[in-house]
Formats: sequence, C-alpha cells, structure tokens
Amino acid sequence: MFFKARPLEFEAKKPIVILNKDDAEDLGTKVLDRVLLKIAKKSLVAIINIAEHLIPRGEIGLYGSVQEKLNVGFGDKIEVIVADTPKSLLHIRKKLTGNILKTDEIREIIDDIVKQTLSDIEITSFVIALYNHGMTMNETAALSMAMADTGKRLDIKNKLVFDKHSIGGIPGDKTSLLLVPAIASFGLTIPKTSSRSITSPAGTADRMECLCPVELDIDEIKSVVKKTNGCLVWGGAVELAPADDIFIQIEYPLSIDPLLLPSVMSKKKAVNARYVVIDIPTGKGAKMKTIEEAQDLGKSFIELGKKLGIKVECASTFGEQPLGYAIGPALEAREALRTLLTGKGPDDLVGKVVHLGSVLLDFKRVKNSKQKMYDSIRSGKAGEKMREIIEEQGGNPNVKPEDVPVGSDTVKIKSSRSGKVLWLNNNAIRAIARSAGAPKDKGAGILLYKKLNDPVKKGETLFEIYTEKSYKLERALRDAKNLNVVGVGKSYEMVLAEIPEEEEHRKYFILER
Amino acid sequence: MFFKARPLEFEAKKPIVILNKDDAEDLGTKVLDRVLLKIAKKSLVAIINIAEHLIPRGEIGLYGSVQEKLNVGFGDKIEVIVADTPKSLLHIRKKLTGNILKTDEIREIIDDIVKQTLSDIEITSFVIALYNHGMTMNETAALSMAMADTGKRLDIKNKLVFDKHSIGGIPGDKTSLLLVPAIASFGLTIPKTSSRSITSPAGTADRMECLCPVELDIDEIKSVVKKTNGCLVWGGAVELAPADDIFIQIEYPLSIDPLLLPSVMSKKKAVNARYVVIDIPTGKGAKMKTIEEAQDLGKSFIELGKKLGIKVECASTFGEQPLGYAIGPALEAREALRTLLTGKGPDDLVGKVVHLGSVLLDFKRVKNSKQKMYDSIRSGKAGEKMREIIEEQGGNPNVKPEDVPVGSDTVKIKSSRSGKVLWLNNNAIRAIARSAGAPKDKGAGILLYKKLNDPVKKGETLFEIYTEKSYKLERALRDAKNLNVVGVGKSYEMVLAEIPEEEEHRKYFILER
Repeated sequence: MFFKARPLEFEAKKPIVILNKDDAEDLGTKVLDRVLLKIAKKSLVAIINIAEHLIPRGEIGLYGSVQEKLNVGFGDKIEVIVADTPKSLLHIRKKLTGNILKTDEIREIIDDIVKQTLSDIEITSFVIALYNHGMTMNETAALSMAMADTGKRLDIKNKLVFDKHSIGGIPGDKTSLLLVPAIASFGLTIPKTSSRSITSPAGTADRMECLCPVELDIDEIKSVVKKTNGCLVWGGAVELAPADDIFIQIEYPLSIDPLLLPSVMSKKKAVNARYVVIDIPTGKGAKMKTIEEAQDLGKSFIELGKKLGIKVECASTFGEQPLGYAIGPALEAREALRTLLTGKGPDDLVGKVVHLGSVLLDFKRVKNSKQKMYDSIRSGKAGEKMREIIEEQGGNPNVKPEDVPVGSDTVKIKSSRSGKVLWLNNNAIRAIARSAGAPKDKGAGILLYKKLNDPVKKGETLFEIYTEKSYKLERALRDAKNLNVVGVGKSYEMVLAEIPEEEEHRKYFILER
Repeated sequence: MFFKARPLEFEAKKPIVILNKDDAEDLGTKVLDRVLLKIAKKSLVAIINIAEHLIPRGEIGLYGSVQEKLNVGFGDKIEVIVADTPKSLLHIRKKLTGNILKTDEIREIIDDIVKQTLSDIEITSFVIALYNHGMTMNETAALSMAMADTGKRLDIKNKLVFDKHSIGGIPGDKTSLLLVPAIASFGLTIPKTSSRSITSPAGTADRMECLCPVELDIDEIKSVVKKTNGCLVWGGAVELAPADDIFIQIEYPLSIDPLLLPSVMSKKKAVNARYVVIDIPTGKGAKMKTIEEAQDLGKSFIELGKKLGIKVECASTFGEQPLGYAIGPALEAREALRTLLTGKGPDDLVGKVVHLGSVLLDFKRVKNSKQKMYDSIRSGKAGEKMREIIEEQGGNPNVKPEDVPVGSDTVKIKSSRSGKVLWLNNNAIRAIARSAGAPKDKGAGILLYKKLNDPVKKGETLFEIYTEKSYKLERALRDAKNLNVVGVGKSYEMVLAEIPEEEEHRKYFILER
C-alpha cells in the first residue's frame, strides 16, 4: 500500500512510523510490528506505532530519523509493506524461555539494538531474560565481543595496553586519577577511558574534567597516549561499546544490572587491553556485600578475560566507607591532585592506588612493585606525569588544587554526641552529595572530617556539604537530617538502625560502569 | 524548581513530561524517574522523559493527558518536585527476583497500570516476571480481583449469572452465537461480553456485529438482558478489567501470554458470573497442544474459580481443524444464523454447542441436558431467542443469512491430487483469512469445502477465499500458495512437512481472550 509521508517533529533514534488505526488494521498489523518502507531506491524497516487521531488515514507519520534516512518531504508517496519479525526478536524469545543462544544469534540481537531497530519492550525482555536465566560464559564472551564490535575501537599500535577498572559503588573513589599517571610513569601504556557518573556523585571522567578536557576523539587520544603513555578521557565521546548505553536506560529504572561483566569487558576489548586489574569494592554499601560474592565475580572476570584474550586480576577492596575525604567531582579532583603534587594523601587512597598499580606492574614481573608504586607517588613522579597528561589533553599543566573551583554555599554537620565513628553510610553520603548537585554541579559534594574509628567530640564537624546553588543546599541539608549518615558511639551497639514503619522509597541502586 | 509549561501535541495516555537534559540533571533525575507537578491546587505525579533539543531549559513539555489534568496553558508556571519511586515499582522488582507478592502489593501494581503511571519498561518487566516465575494461586486470585475491581462492573440484580468462555485459537469458532440464545431460551441469565479478535480472523464481538450493534453501554446491556435473559456484546465498550488491554500490548510483541487465567476470570468476576463453562480447544494448531496441558489449565481455572466464588467446569475440545465451514466475521455470522434459523448446521459446531451448553444446564441439575440443548437448536427455539436478542441490541430481528454482506472478490483453491483430507492447518487458515482482510473487512474470510477425512478428487475445490478489496485477494492468494493449508493424500504419510532451510519468520502466536 502507498501512503503520503507526514514528517513529525519527534526526537527519536528508533525508526518509528505512526499509522492511523484503520490503516494499520487494513495492513493487518499491530503496534510494534515491522513494515518495510520504500521510496525511490531507498528502503528501511521501521517499527509501527498507531494513533487514532494524530495521523489521518492514508498518511504515515515519520519520526526524525526515518525522515532523514529516506530523505522524504511532506506528501511524498511511500510504499509500505508488512515485514517479517526481525530475527533478533526470535532469538530474544528463545532466551526468554531459558535457552542458550549461539554466538551469531547474540550478534544479531546486539546489531539490532545498536541500530535501534528493537523497541523498548523487546530490549527490556532481553535484559530481563539475561537477569532471570543468566548467561553461560560462552554467551557472555559472545555478548562482550558483539558489544565491542558494534562500536568504535581505540587501537594503540605496537603497544601492550594496560588498563584498570572499578565496578564502582564507593563514593570518593578517585583511584584512577592517581593510578594512571603512576603506571604511565613506568613507561607502560594505559589509555584509560572512563564513564561519567550514572548513580554516583562523580565518575572518573567527571573528576578529570575539573582539570582538563576529557571529550577527545580517537586521534586526539592516540596523540596524548603516544606522548605520555596514558590518558584519562570520557569513553562516551568515542562510542566504545555503545550498546551499553542502551542497556543502562533499561537497567536503571528496574534497578537490575545483569550485564555488568560484558559491559566492563567489552570496553576493555574495545581499547585492545591485554592486562587488566579490576577493583571490586566489597562491603555494606558497596555493590558486592560479601567477600564470597566478590570472589565469585572476580573469578568470572578472569574466566571471561581468558576467552577474550585479556589477562585479568581482581582485587576485593574495603568498601564500607568513602575513599579519602572528598566526594564530588571538584573536591575529588583537588584531593587527587594535592596527593599527586605533594606525594602525600589519605592512607586508604594511597594504599589502594599502590596495591592496584602493583598488580599491573606484576604482570610485567617488575620487582618490588608495591614499593615502586609507592615511590612513584611519594617522589612526585606520578604528579609530574599527571601534569603532562593534563597538558596534552588541553588543560593547564600548572593547575593547583586551589585553582579548581568548588561550591561556595557550604554547611558543616556536627556531631550530637561524643565517641568514635562506628560506621559511615555510603548510600546516605551518595544521596546527599547528589542532592547537593553532584555530579552536574562540579563544585558540589561532601568533605568528610571524620572517618571510621576516628574519635569525635560532641559539636565537632563530621562532614561539610558544598553546593553551588542555595536551593540545593537546602535539599541536601534536609537529606542530611533525615538519613543516618555517620554513626558515632562509644562502642558497637546491638541496634544498627530503627526500622521505620513506613516503607522507604528512596532508590539506592548503584549502576556504575 | 519552577518550570514554564509547554503543552505538546502527543497522544499518550501516560502522564509523561519532557525536561531538557540539563534541567533533569539539575533536579538529579533520569529518564523514567517520577516528578510531582504542582500548579494552583492541582497536583499530579508524572514520568520523566528527557530531550536534548526539543524542550528549552526552564520549560517542561507536557503530554496531552498531563496538560488536561492540570489544566495549564503555554507559559504557566509549574512547580516540579522529585517524587519517590512508586511503591508499585518496588513490588514489581520484588516479583522480578521471584518473590511472592501480597494481595495489596498486586492491587497497587494493577492500580498504577490502569492509572497509566508505570512506563512500558516497568510493565514489561512485570509481565515477564510473571512469565518467568509464575504465580501462586493466591497471587492469581488477587490479580483477577484487582483487574476486576479497577474496571466497571456489570451487575444483573437478583439473577444467577451463567457464562461461557473459550480460550480461543480455533478459526471459525462461532459457538457463543448459538450457545447464548440456547441457554437464554431456558430462562437462564447469560450476559455474554466478548472480545474482538486480537490475532484471529474474528472474535465473537466481530461476528455478532454483522447482525446487530454490539457496542452497548452498561444500562443498555442490562435492559437487553432483562428482556431476553441474554446478550452478545463487546466487552471493550464497557471497560471490564481494562488492565488486560494494557497487558495485551506487551504480550503480543513478545508472543507470551502469562496472564491468561486472571485475564479470563477477572472478566467473569466483573460480570458477577456464578457458573462458567470454559472451552479449551486442544491439538496441533490450538493453544493447548496436548490433553495433559489442557487438563492442567482446566484444573487451574476450576481452582481459581473457587477462590473467586465462581463454579467452573472446563471442556477440552477437538482443536485440529476450524469449527464449521466458515471463517471470517460475516461468513461465520451467516453460518451461525442459518444453523439457528433452520435448526440444522455442521455436526462439529452443533455438537460443541450442545456439549458446552449442557454443562451449564447441569449446574442447575436439568435432566437430559444434552437432549434439551439439542432440541433447543433443532426446534428453532434458540433461533427465536436470537431474533429477540438481535432486536433488543438494535438490529433487524428478521435478518436472513443472505442479508449479511460478504466479500465479492473471491477465488477457489482446488486440490492438485485425489485422496482424502488428512490434515487442515489452523495457522495457515488463520493467516490467509487475515491477509484476505478479516477481521477488519467483515466480509473477508474463508469458506471451507472440505474438512478432515472428506474424500477429495483432483480439481475439486478445497476452500474459497472471500475479500472486499482486490489487493487483499492477491495477498491472500500468495499466502495460500506459500503455506501448507490442507493435506490431501491416500493415507497418512510419514513425512508431515519439509523443513525449509531458511528460518521462517511468520508469526503464529495465538493471543485471544
């Protein structure tokens, strides 16, 4: 049947067309069925939506992307033919019933997801099928490869590529900002691509952006790495494994994360990494609650790495409090830079950098790797390398910690009792920092004054909230009052928390990549 | 924060608002998070979508339903406050991990689905959770009650209500058109609400609509039933258990149907039925492939009925060929009316009507129930009652079968060999009838000339395709040539079908209610 084109103003990446209800019935089609559109020598398969009034009979509404691809204007005649169900949808249905998918079936699914030809309902059913039925290691490897292959590649010629990844979840985790220049200072190649925050107060890309640009293209990244051996850039700008961004849109509202392994490893594959250390923060308020869980995940990463030709080591790290004292992009950038430039910083931060870095050095059988990592920080060698990287990425190499602007509206939260810090609530800290404006407002966040086991006197400051906008300060302050942030007491008491009668609806889901 | 309203022209039942990406980040919200909108004394919780260009900063795009409910115009100031995650979504997540839901949790989910405050992704995850984890009988009962309670009720005062339901799947199944007047002719009350076709060539409402109006409101239905004891109307017009229509939108593209039990029984509850017979067509090309499957399903219907205060009997009926000879709304209406008026019709059709009807009479301990049902058809008593019902619903009581218009473009498909009919392919017959235009074109469909075990001579007509439009005839004819519709041979041969090398993408999913 032929229809008159009616371009619509909707922003949508999916190739959606809208038919009048009666026309759809004439074609024998329903919502989400597919049609083949033909005009001149161009053709395109699109997803059907149906409207009762918006589109008159005989017309076909075209979302922006369809209109562009077919290059049609209002009133142009388009032939519309009922199309087959996409093969990828048949594979998704197969997985929905618990079957194991073949490599080429997974590839077809990921191809269609990246090409945006599957609907939200269909992609959701795939994500939930993975969540419910799990994946074999072969499926996970196929998925990782398909996700890497459907995106761009960062290929540093003639270099063995090292990489580091954290599965995230600990506020204030600025490890990469120290580890990358330290490793690069040993002459190893570490082109670190990072994500921005999804559910946290700051991602590595958000932190680094306080010091220099992070949205570099592939050629710019290669040039930085060629000169300095390292970089700290935003992976989103270079479209590595773009399927992951689509999965995140589904996973976030459902608070599920069945694609963690292929998500991480597809990106390592996309930068052609050969040696990778993966940080698995563990504990109450982290993604992995117990060491056993962390070990299981770590073993899976190692096994998956073998299938992808990547040597992986994992470390389960202490995750029951934020790392260092600063939370929020600018505050963290300051803390990282100060540590690099002075060679001195919070013990837990430096300790973690040294430990994870030494794992990378051990891949190369470097002797006394821990000591060497420690020396690279303390001596300022890593700091010197950081200046080089900042400069090559287009920043000011002489930037000082105080130069990084932080929020000017601040408030200190004081302790109502004396004792020592028995616990810190990562979820609450994350929530307050986000209410304060992080990561969107780079200067917003939290500065901790006390950490686990520190003695506290009544009236002493526990933490300080930084904001750029006063209404956000109010919002954060309200949260600080309502949430149990820091536990101060004489000794561990039996009552951890009072269970409120009303169910709490706050979302504490950690989805980081 | 305050935003300027920007009404949008989108048709959408869901309360969706669109924010500029930067504003959403300022609020600390993501796609599908919820916001509370406040203006004057009105307020509403809406689902967030995010746009990069469509909506300028400081504005909030409002879908039609939001604009109406808040009664705002362009530029009006709306306060936007981040809202909690809906409780129903927490319950859905609970089911997603395989937990059993409580009655009030199920009620909250169904409430929000009917109020359209859950996104497609969220409803999809609920449907798939039910598909994957199943439901306990208590959950199924709670779901049925919630689905009934969130819609309208048809309450026939002071009458014991009888009802009949088929889970569908057999082309040409016009049983209700004969059973309802027959049962009503015994003085029993049977206010039959039916669905229109979803994936079949005709639903009962589509068939009846060829004889008289079926879109009656509740008062009109009551009046018809008061005068005639029965009716045959479209349930969609009176919004019984409207959640089901929303579930169907998700189930159809995924080809899954986890809600069959609550879908059917919520509608029986909504009409306050006390005695119900359920027809479960069984066999290759039906929904239930084996008698064991049919028995399991039947037992579940009976058990669920007990929980809902409904006495249920089930019958597994022969489902390996169409019922009667006519397929398609008008052709079927003709066949049903002719049988009622002459007292004579296809053996399988009359036999099924007699059997299912006798189950209803048995609830009332009527003696010789089968013979009485048979007599009611043969004597024309049921036909007389049908005329009354047609008249009360606003049709012409003297309508004759020939008065019902059928398609004028027809073609006969002939046998290429002699033998007898070994099998009929329900899926192929359904597909061809739909290609021919059914159910949209009421006069389109198929008339069978031969059924199972009938002798066939080479060149004899096997079936005839009826269409209202010539391009649909071409389409149906192409299907008739490509699909294996009727198997004619001397005896059952070992080869049932050749397996094509290429995967077939045609959708043969039966979703009927």
